[in-house]
Amino acid sequence: MISLADLQRRIEAGELSPDAAIVQSLEAIETREKDVRAFVCRASSAKAQASGPLRGIAVGIKDIIDTADFPTEMGSQIYRGWQPRSDAPVVMMLKRAGATIIGKTTTTAFASRDPTPTLNPHNPGHSPGGSSSGSAAAVGAGMVPLALGTQTGGSVIRPAAYCGVAAIKPSFRMLPTVGVKCYSWALDTVGLFGARAEDLARGLLAMTGRTEFSDIVAVRSPRIGVVRQDFAGPVEPAAEQGLQAAIKAAERAGASVETVDVPEAVREAWRIHPIIQDFEAHRALAWEFSERHDEIAPMLRASLDATVGLTPKEYDEARRIGRRGRRELGEVFEGVDVLLTYSAPGTAPAKELATTGDPRYNRLWTLMGNPCVNVPVLKVGGLPIGVQVIARFGNDPGALAVARFLEEALAKSN
Amino acid sequence: MISLADLQRRIEAGELSPDAAIVQSLEAIETREKDVRAFVCRASSAKAQASGPLRGIAVGIKDIIDTADFPTEMGSQIYRGWQPRSDAPVVMMLKRAGATIIGKTTTTAFASRDPTPTLNPHNPGHSPGGSSSGSAAAVGAGMVPLALGTQTGGSVIRPAAYCGVAAIKPSFRMLPTVGVKCYSWALDTVGLFGARAEDLARGLLAMTGRTEFSDIVAVRSPRIGVVRQDFAGPVEPAAEQGLQAAIKAAERAGASVETVDVPEAVREAWRIHPIIQDFEAHRALAWEFSERHDEIAPMLRASLDATVGLTPKEYDEARRIGRRGRRELGEVFEGVDVLLTYSAPGTAPAKELATTGDPRYNRLWTLMGNPCVNVPVLKVGGLPIGVQVIARFGNDPGALAVARFLEEALAKSN
Repeated sequence: MISLADLQRRIEAGELSPDAAIVQSLEAIETREKDVRAFVCRASSAKAQASGPLRGIAVGIKDIIDTADFPTEMGSQIYRGWQPRSDAPVVMMLKRAGATIIGKTTTTAFASRDPTPTLNPHNPGHSPGGSSSGSAAAVGAGMVPLALGTQTGGSVIRPAAYCGVAAIKPSFRMLPTVGVKCYSWALDTVGLFGARAEDLARGLLAMTGRTEFSDIVAVRSPRIGVVRQDFAGPVEPAAEQGLQAAIKAAERAGASVETVDVPEAVREAWRIHPIIQDFEAHRALAWEFSERHDEIAPMLRASLDATVGLTPKEYDEARRIGRRGRRELGEVFEGVDVLLTYSAPGTAPAKELATTGDPRYNRLWTLMGNPCVNVPVLKVGGLPIGVQVIARFGNDPGALAVARFLEEALAKSN
Repeated sequence: MISLADLQRRIEAGELSPDAAIVQSLEAIETREKDVRAFVCRASSAKAQASGPLRGIAVGIKDIIDTADFPTEMGSQIYRGWQPRSDAPVVMMLKRAGATIIGKTTTTAFASRDPTPTLNPHNPGHSPGGSSSGSAAAVGAGMVPLALGTQTGGSVIRPAAYCGVAAIKPSFRMLPTVGVKCYSWALDTVGLFGARAEDLARGLLAMTGRTEFSDIVAVRSPRIGVVRQDFAGPVEPAAEQGLQAAIKAAERAGASVETVDVPEAVREAWRIHPIIQDFEAHRALAWEFSERHDEIAPMLRASLDATVGLTPKEYDEARRIGRRGRRELGEVFEGVDVLLTYSAPGTAPAKELATTGDPRYNRLWTLMGNPCVNVPVLKVGGLPIGVQVIARFGNDPGALAVARFLEEALAKSN
């Protein structure tokens, strides 16, 4: 993989020109794209900007995010060739920081579940996950150092885990979702993919100008609460193996690790996530559903057809449960710095299963709005397993600092 | 004005065909539009739908709201001729309920402050207010029974007051802002204009399917707390005259009216509203600001130029103050059913002043997220004055029920 931090240091030191860094990505795309198919469209030639902390950084943008210089097709034939007038704010944040938008990455239709043509960079017989399939795969295949995705259920953390890359789903609303095709306005969150936690921190620093992302180093002796989310159903042995390896490495490196339970209200919040998601999707995609129903991708169409009867009353009750869950989850963080859990139920599913995997270990945290970081831990059968570090709402730097601790702990234990 | 409720009753009773109701709007537009200039574009012929509670209801849509059948120009030359692919969810809610979208109404550029060509239907020498200028004027001139606007500071309630129409800014996020050009994602709120509170309730019932909007009648003996918002600066005598007339009519009709103070935290929230608004506008309009700066309308451009230095730290602090204000405002509603205040500092400003008026009595309530309803009270110098009824967050039916009480009380006292 290409590390954003490494590129920045080499460019800063004059060892690498910004243009040469972009060429490195273009060449990597030339080599790897035919086997990975991460891009919907891309710049055949691209120049670096002369200044800005992200000069020389080639970025892939999930194709539900508006770009003025590339079509934005939402993974759907309904938007084939669709050209927005303007760049979404998150794209402008990157461009103003000096980044070069290198292309648009594949997305499942409207960031839902229908698989894209993208293949897992670790094994083309497997899914890269979704819905941010192309962004995770493009970083995992070493084509770009940074890519943007979005998560409504588990669409950033899960594909990151399957593709063996670091990713952050920041605190809800830290990055604007303006100009991002909406599925659920209470849940949609823009996230970043990179090689390591440090790369994510540098990306967020450059995009937001938030100085709390400067110089994030591994925290010492973090207090880690392990949450197995039994309410979300069983995991495959590979996921449990990854979690245990992370726990063991963390303990060896000086962390205190304890198993914690989440209150009933938080379990309830996990349960009602789909009600909020599906009720809002019916409004957000009302035009497509009413006017272009037959052109909606089949899995999404079936899901919308099945949830057409959700009522405002059920939605209001779900939102109340979500708010209660958020309050009670806050108390869980009084005893620990972060929570640690599975990023996905196992390794990436085989491509012929025609699934991008299950977001069941992610969706609670999307609804709660907490920052989540995927840390790659090990490989099972040649496919990556990651764990998810979750910090208190608004403590994105804390999530990244523990993710860095864990990366270093795992590097030492290997 | 055309009353939505009256049309519904006559259509239901078979006294009026839906098509005839649409023709009534088309003819009114033909007659009045040249003097009011409320529309950016409109259907020259339009048919009613055969079914749905809003069959026969012609609706005007503010031109920052995406429509698949009309261009959406945002009041800006940057979007001249811009044709979205899809209808915004709020437009689909209307269409699914049977409404006929009759045209797009004028908006100040990006719903900010630069005046549109629209004239006040009560006196063409005066502003209709803004930013939802065309929607307020189209309803006020009797051209349509229903129109959509949006409010970030005071862009629904203020023009409603100036044009002598009823309007509701619902609780934050009751109506989705998906497909609405964003200025501030924490503030932007879609609102409705109609002849009276009953019309607004019927519009919301049809759009949302929320049964709590069924059969809203005037509440008996409401407890009304008068808030003069001295922290927002002085009012003109005409506005105070309107407020006192509303108070007197309410008391005669059996309301208990007391003056209430808002806590310091709420006053602070009023103060920091512009920080949240302007910080987010710089992100929401980042592409326009960076790439098309010279084409941004001059008042908005000056405002953006002046606020370019706002920092994430100032923004985070403002959001904290906003949250504290919201908590403490909740306590104010323990003693009263609604708050009553000015809808605007006075009557509509003269057109030559090149201003849409001041949102200083509106912006606090937009930030707090509470439902607000404008009730026309009287005219001073031929120009309307309204008052603003504000209910607890989520109690939109309560705001409408007190607005209806006030309308009936004012009708009796005249």
